[in-house]
Amino acid sequence: MTILSDSLLNRKTIRKYSPENIDDELLNEILLKGCRASTTGNMQVYSIIITRDAVKKKELAPYHFNQSMVTTAPVILTFCADFNRFNKWCTLRKAIPGYDNFLSFFTAAVDALLVAQTVCIAAEEKGLGICYLGTTTYMAHKIIEVLRLPKGVVPVTTVTLGWPGEDPEQVDRLPLEAVIHRETYADYSESDIDRIYAEKEKREDSGKFIRENNKETLAQVFTDIRYTAKDNIFFSRTLLKVLEDQGFMNQ
Amino acid sequence: MTILSDSLLNRKTIRKYSPENIDDELLNEILLKGCRASTTGNMQVYSIIITRDAVKKKELAPYHFNQSMVTTAPVILTFCADFNRFNKWCTLRKAIPGYDNFLSFFTAAVDALLVAQTVCIAAEEKGLGICYLGTTTYMAHKIIEVLRLPKGVVPVTTVTLGWPGEDPEQVDRLPLEAVIHRETYADYSESDIDRIYAEKEKREDSGKFIRENNKETLAQVFTDIRYTAKDNIFFSRTLLKVLEDQGFMNQ
Repeated sequence: MTILSDSLLNRKTIRKYSPENIDDELLNEILLKGCRASTTGNMQVYSIIITRDAVKKKELAPYHFNQSMVTTAPVILTFCADFNRFNKWCTLRKAIPGYDNFLSFFTAAVDALLVAQTVCIAAEEKGLGICYLGTTTYMAHKIIEVLRLPKGVVPVTTVTLGWPGEDPEQVDRLPLEAVIHRETYADYSESDIDRIYAEKEKREDSGKFIRENNKETLAQVFTDIRYTAKDNIFFSRTLLKVLEDQGFMNQ
Repeated sequence: MTILSDSLLNRKTIRKYSPENIDDELLNEILLKGCRASTTGNMQVYSIIITRDAVKKKELAPYHFNQSMVTTAPVILTFCADFNRFNKWCTLRKAIPGYDNFLSFFTAAVDALLVAQTVCIAAEEKGLGICYLGTTTYMAHKIIEVLRLPKGVVPVTTVTLGWPGEDPEQVDRLPLEAVIHRETYADYSESDIDRIYAEKEKREDSGKFIRENNKETLAQVFTDIRYTAKDNIFFSRTLLKVLEDQGFMNQ
């Protein structure tokens, strides 16, 4: 049991890959494991787009803000909420699908994300390294174009996959007590917040982020530089438009 | 490596549990592993509510449509998208958070779901059984009341956890080729759908579902009985209202 324990506890996101490829047999094994993840009503309302082609990677890259992993990883996996296949099955079987609404999108997104995380864990167990790209939901409309996703399909996350070409330090996490609540939500007092964030705030790299960005606090690096209200509002509108265009906002 | 391989490939959802409890040490180990899952910008914008109290389980049960696992499992975990803690930190650190929008909700939901699936895999590795409850998003407004979730917090999925009290058959999945696409999305022709769903449709339990529900096709069991347009529209409106009430629709 130790191997998995170690693998889950000691895992790190890998952003640099060796040039070695991932063969189809190994990739299939990993994807097959992913598809054993729980899925609402066993509908499997997701699809996985595999990108290996260098030209396709270059097309995707700008929509992932040119993060280097998109062109350097041997395999890019785009996980999509997908009711298109299920709807087609229904229509061909004298059944009228009612899955063009927000709940159905969210159901399919949950399916896709549980598969994504299972694929990542199966990959890491094999010694591969992974990195999630949050840019997928920011630029979903462009990724839809590049991957030619039809109505009923929305990309929800992307994972880059390859053999590790780096061995970074494991990043910090908040203490477990910070994210769990017993029976009911115990809201955070000022002293709770001070205690929970103390270790993160005194880290050397936190100080470096603050100085590099000319900010006063680490929180300001998030609100003013990395995840700004302006960007969030813009991308929220774009994403809601994508849900409408892909046929998920009829309620 | 075989142990995990088997665990991921041979896993089954468990709905019946032995009366044995899960001790805090084991639960903490599993949750700690869950919190090593990838999280956007290392913000950890999720919370996990642990329900062990029989009274609390009874309060939750109706909002999970009285599925028996809610009162019979020793532990219920409700995974929440949570920007409340992060927002509080920002405010106390002279930073103005801009996370009251749909993109931020979805970012936090992704975080919560990756943690949930990692917790489930870590639990199964220890021999525990899990079951996801899709009802969480249907009745989020009621679960918010029972668990006293503040603004900025939305429950996105629930997992029941316990030592297996049954050993069911593993359920079917579509062939892997059905859910993967290479480079671009290859949309499904009528013969693709026939081929992909052939095995599922000829299963004995599929025939049973059709007969029990007086339907003509398996797809009709989904559209007319299990996941109807009427319910989906109703729950879509409720869920969107929850996002608004919890402060995630200002864009």
